[in-house]
Amino acid sequence: MGEKKNVLLVGGGGVGAIGALNLEAGGLAAVTAVLRSNYQVVKDDGFEIHSCDHGVLKGWRPTQVVSKVPNVKEENLPAFDYIVCATKNIPDVPPTVVDIISPAVTPSHTVIVLIQNGLNIEKPIFAAFPQNIVLSGVSMIGSNETKLGFIQHDEVDEIIISAFENPNLETAVQVAAAEDFVRAYSAAGKCKCSHDANVGFVRWRKLVYNACINPVSAITDLDSGRLQIADGAADTLLRPAMEEIRAAAKVFGHDLPAEVIQKTITVDPVDMYLPPSMLGDVRKGNFIEFENLLGEPLRDGTAKGVPMPTLTVLYNLCKAIQWRNKQLKGLIEIPPKKDYTTSPH
Amino acid sequence: MGEKKNVLLVGGGGVGAIGALNLEAGGLAAVTAVLRSNYQVVKDDGFEIHSCDHGVLKGWRPTQVVSKVPNVKEENLPAFDYIVCATKNIPDVPPTVVDIISPAVTPSHTVIVLIQNGLNIEKPIFAAFPQNIVLSGVSMIGSNETKLGFIQHDEVDEIIISAFENPNLETAVQVAAAEDFVRAYSAAGKCKCSHDANVGFVRWRKLVYNACINPVSAITDLDSGRLQIADGAADTLLRPAMEEIRAAAKVFGHDLPAEVIQKTITVDPVDMYLPPSMLGDVRKGNFIEFENLLGEPLRDGTAKGVPMPTLTVLYNLCKAIQWRNKQLKGLIEIPPKKDYTTSPH
Repeated sequence: MGEKKNVLLVGGGGVGAIGALNLEAGGLAAVTAVLRSNYQVVKDDGFEIHSCDHGVLKGWRPTQVVSKVPNVKEENLPAFDYIVCATKNIPDVPPTVVDIISPAVTPSHTVIVLIQNGLNIEKPIFAAFPQNIVLSGVSMIGSNETKLGFIQHDEVDEIIISAFENPNLETAVQVAAAEDFVRAYSAAGKCKCSHDANVGFVRWRKLVYNACINPVSAITDLDSGRLQIADGAADTLLRPAMEEIRAAAKVFGHDLPAEVIQKTITVDPVDMYLPPSMLGDVRKGNFIEFENLLGEPLRDGTAKGVPMPTLTVLYNLCKAIQWRNKQLKGLIEIPPKKDYTTSPH
Repeated sequence: MGEKKNVLLVGGGGVGAIGALNLEAGGLAAVTAVLRSNYQVVKDDGFEIHSCDHGVLKGWRPTQVVSKVPNVKEENLPAFDYIVCATKNIPDVPPTVVDIISPAVTPSHTVIVLIQNGLNIEKPIFAAFPQNIVLSGVSMIGSNETKLGFIQHDEVDEIIISAFENPNLETAVQVAAAEDFVRAYSAAGKCKCSHDANVGFVRWRKLVYNACINPVSAITDLDSGRLQIADGAADTLLRPAMEEIRAAAKVFGHDLPAEVIQKTITVDPVDMYLPPSMLGDVRKGNFIEFENLLGEPLRDGTAKGVPMPTLTVLYNLCKAIQWRNKQLKGLIEIPPKKDYTTSPH
């Protein structure tokens, strides 16, 4: 075994912490984790992890824990072989992913791994780093940080790695990088990490959930269980939205079988009452990832002439909800309220 | 002046209390008000009313205040000439309007006045009382009960009365009843109550607000001011929804001018930040009036072949939100939650 891969992890929540654990446990990678809200807790006491794949770990830390993305050039650090992004991706609220990772990227060298949902997330990365390899990570993990530094990991870390197609680089090099990453991630044998060359198919298939169940759930405040039993919600909202995704995917050459729809609607058991991530965000007053999950497939599909009336309305409602949160958080200023009540005579 | 009209008012909130005041102030009617939440307060101390039309009144009461709809037959009471319903109309949550008023209706005599929004609200009334006159009241008042028994009335009591067309009765009798009611309501000269024979036009025009601004606002938690300035909300949600209402209205012979749309979007000043009634209901966890405001025009329009994709999605989202509230209030039972978390090893 050669030298360990030098990995920077950005985002140490439920997904990122288990990713760091798999990479470190395999012995092929040394992880520097950039943490934000949980930095002090993890720095002092490490993570406490209750994992269906790894058992219980207390006081666990990756090789290094830092509070901000290091500036490789200014700090004269060794180049990172991989930067793994396991944060949310919200391009309509700065800073963008490019803004965040830029100081740590070594052009033509660092492989950037986006364990993030949605479509076209590679485009701004390629625009900023045209000579770098960018990998797609589509994760089916069930893992949450239930309090700072405490990771509850209930569903196996299944993750599909693919290379986004960088037209400036040889395909073989990109595929090799994907396979290399899978090797490092899987080395401990405690996850289901695989390579799938058909990145488009993998991502469009995930959109059947993400572009449909996520927004309907966020808008109606119904979790994935209630959406299955609520009066007409699956038939009048989820199914039409999912058929629109299938139709758009088809235009892009990805033939999602019809069964995907029923399978996706029932992927979480009813009596789990699992809130999809976007509903979790709305409940916490956080920004939602609607642009990549919903906006991009909608724009791509409608640009090709696919009728997407359900997703159009869902998208515009999500946009209004995002605006509301931006305004509430002071990112948008509005005219002061004027008193229009009748004063007592 | 002959004997006063015997009026039963059901619903003594912001709209009903001012209605009772106008009817009593004019001297042509004696009002028995059926109150619920504010019954005891009003019984004891009367209403406190701060009104742009009537000034400040403290301790005001209609002729009679009761806590439930009287049973005219059983209690051997004189027949009511009018029953004025100023409650919300939520046909999907019992009791229905027919259930509520039945004990007080004298067949072939009582004129039932529905000061309620939406389409087809007369149908269940005609089905139950085929020989009675039913009047439409479309109110543009701004009046709210800000605490029990306290009415803040800020916008003039403008109300349009029409007869719903009962095919079992002569048109002239129905129109005369509408004009009679307008006379009694207007006698004090402190409101803008008028008769308009074109009930369909009046009701469809109001739907431009009620079927569009109400649901979008309720779904996005944006008031009527924020909806005017939020990123794309007016152009991508309100306008398309309103154009669908215009198209449906046209099929039913009601030609709403194009300007209605801009006028309706801006009817409340931005810096008033007025929450439409349906948003108010969602914020309070109340049921929403989406079936008559949105479901009926959608069903009528689509039955005639009008494409209504925006309203279809809004309707199905409202239905899901109503289901959520029914479930929260215990009207619907769901399977108990099962614990799917990994127990610590």
